[in-house]
Amino acid sequence: MPRPFVSLLTDFGLRDPSAAICRGVVLGIAPDAEIVDISHEVRKYRVRDGALLLWCALPYLPIGSHVAVVDPGVGTERRGVAIRVARGDHLVGPDNGLLLMAADRLGGVVEGVELEAPEYRLPVISSSFHGRDIFAPAAAHLALGVAIARLGPAVDPATLVRLRFPEPRVRDGALDSHVIYVDTFGNVKLTALATDLRTALGPMVAGTGLDVEVGERRLGVPWQTTFGNVSPGEPLVYEDSYGRLCLAVNQGDAAAMLGLTEDAAVRIRRRAD
Amino acid sequence: MPRPFVSLLTDFGLRDPSAAICRGVVLGIAPDAEIVDISHEVRKYRVRDGALLLWCALPYLPIGSHVAVVDPGVGTERRGVAIRVARGDHLVGPDNGLLLMAADRLGGVVEGVELEAPEYRLPVISSSFHGRDIFAPAAAHLALGVAIARLGPAVDPATLVRLRFPEPRVRDGALDSHVIYVDTFGNVKLTALATDLRTALGPMVAGTGLDVEVGERRLGVPWQTTFGNVSPGEPLVYEDSYGRLCLAVNQGDAAAMLGLTEDAAVRIRRRAD
Amino acid sequence: MPRPFVSLLTDFGLRDPSAAICRGVVLGIAPDAEIVDISHEVRKYRVRDGALLLWCALPYLPIGSHVAVVDPGVGTERRGVAIRVARGDHLVGPDNGLLLMAADRLGGVVEGVELEAPEYRLPVISSSFHGRDIFAPAAAHLALGVAIARLGPAVDPATLVRLRFPEPRVRDGALDSHVIYVDTFGNVKLTALATDLRTALGPMVAGTGLDVEVGERRLGVPWQTTFGNVSPGEPLVYEDSYGRLCLAVNQGDAAAMLGLTEDAAVRIRRRAD
Repeated sequence: MPRPFVSLLTDFGLRDPSAAICRGVVLGIAPDAEIVDISHEVRKYRVRDGALLLWCALPYLPIGSHVAVVDPGVGTERRGVAIRVARGDHLVGPDNGLLLMAADRLGGVVEGVELEAPEYRLPVISSSFHGRDIFAPAAAHLALGVAIARLGPAVDPATLVRLRFPEPRVRDGALDSHVIYVDTFGNVKLTALATDLRTALGPMVAGTGLDVEVGERRLGVPWQTTFGNVSPGEPLVYEDSYGRLCLAVNQGDAAAMLGLTEDAAVRIRRRAD
Repeated sequence: MPRPFVSLLTDFGLRDPSAAICRGVVLGIAPDAEIVDISHEVRKYRVRDGALLLWCALPYLPIGSHVAVVDPGVGTERRGVAIRVARGDHLVGPDNGLLLMAADRLGGVVEGVELEAPEYRLPVISSSFHGRDIFAPAAAHLALGVAIARLGPAVDPATLVRLRFPEPRVRDGALDSHVIYVDTFGNVKLTALATDLRTALGPMVAGTGLDVEVGERRLGVPWQTTFGNVSPGEPLVYEDSYGRLCLAVNQGDAAAMLGLTEDAAVRIRRRAD
Repeated sequence: MPRPFVSLLTDFGLRDPSAAICRGVVLGIAPDAEIVDISHEVRKYRVRDGALLLWCALPYLPIGSHVAVVDPGVGTERRGVAIRVARGDHLVGPDNGLLLMAADRLGGVVEGVELEAPEYRLPVISSSFHGRDIFAPAAAHLALGVAIARLGPAVDPATLVRLRFPEPRVRDGALDSHVIYVDTFGNVKLTALATDLRTALGPMVAGTGLDVEVGERRLGVPWQTTFGNVSPGEPLVYEDSYGRLCLAVNQGDAAAMLGLTEDAAVRIRRRAD
């Protein structure tokens, strides 16, 4: 029988002990659990960042219970939930949009519950640390095989909060998209997938010339398969390892060099020859 | 039989390999150990920070051996010690005040030893990395069940170094306290517990008006149970999830907004209506 | 039978999920693996930093499979390799110089292969994340006992890329060396080992006066065994816990105070009385 598996993703940071405390709580309930920290350095309060990072990570993790806590509304009326997805995982966290992008990627929500059953929480519930008091215990019990329905009343999946951001659009021979995330290398991730670019502009081969428009600026940037195919300091458009459309600079910080921040609008065309 | 449990807390940082090396040393001695990193980003040389974070974390971790290393005096005359506490844990580290706050919270010191027995150290002892050479090996052996008395000569618990900081005081209808820690959200933790405030000013309910005085400034701040009960950007006084009295700003950085740093004196009164 | 052991060292950073994904991939192949993160905060693209940190760490880790990824050339012609060393470990990563310093320290390269066998890779290989798609799977299979020769064609060890940096030199009663690394405390590590200093200048005892020359500046600094032997804020020359020659400031940041950065030339002499 495999070890119970639990992952953790939070904005708690790694200086403070909050992440370790969640790990300790899981081990107190499921001493044999294998626990993986996806990230505890999600930028604070950035629910969308957390949602995207979960979307990236969960397909590569074992089937298990995944706790996610980016939770500016902790202690207020927002619900704490667990959801079961088609792949067999349980996702546990606040019902603020953090969980559904990853849930869709794992086959979609099969059922959800609101985390109310006191026997699957810590004995004392604080107002500001539900990761420790509610979410980590729920995940540990789910990883041990407790049926999700025992953790609280059913939640209609259609009522779960879903993040909204602008869909990429094809218009006048251009792909219109937005910056969704800048990673720690400075690589700029767009809301569009690479398939959206191919749909909009046709096949891409290494060196295909593109024009990237940001506000009033237009920059010629080649399509490439990887960073090292351009000289250090030079930009490229590429498909990242999750299928997402991205801008990067070889051995450089594309966001800084191109002046791009989250939510900026980016238009991409084939370069006029 | 449960796996031997070891936790690690240091100011080594996560870029350098020191923390991983301590983990490797533990695994070399206790290959089945479950190891949890409480933090390796304790601010450098800040013994009090480490003491406070241990105090927060250990009650939520399994009973085991806990290594703590914030050790500006490494290699000098300061003692390296292991102490056994009433809960059954062993705390291992320098005798510089780092361990006792958490030891008290786990029931108090039952016995202590100075880490001198060569058979429970690495073969070569450096002058600057006792975490690797002395503390991690001691913790691993203790986690395996070696009796603490075998690790070295007994230490009189009354001689262990204890951190001192100003006690909160009640005076003229006000609670006088000091900032003890600012967490990575910018939440400001005081030396006082929330019970001290209730003792000083009587019962608190959501919305109770308080005046917070820092130096010449006075700020009206409500008592609340959690961040989201005030608007984003607004301050609150609350009881954190460890029972400590804190100042926060909803989705903001209270330390920056209120100009508070460690050791600042803070006076709290009921608001004059 | 011991658990399969895998370590990870990358420049992926801890905010993004890349490191956790590598861990997840290892667990998907070797569910019982013990995995240690050496560092994921290696400064980006700094192959030499990664090589040095591996050199520090691996002697203290269990024998196993060690993945290292600082890989600005990912997806280009640079080879992906696994090498077996005399101690019995396997080192896995790009053939860009990252692995050999540590390999030498573990007894030297016994054999190497280029990672080409598709059955030991993930089914889809991206152009930009070989840590996930090639290196982590290879390490997991090696940790499970798969013979290295099955992972791809043999590589002549003499053709593996080796980092070059200036050798320390003794000249005119001085040791000439260079800064190789500044750690997170600001301690300045030189290319020279402490034994080089003794060879150049004779025996060192606590308090031996030295002159440290950086460019036009000359600074009197004593040899000491540990930080606390000088006053806070004062500099020292010492042998770090890996045998390397270093400059530090007690409870301070030597690199900042002495204006030293990587690759700076440092000359050390006995102090003229």
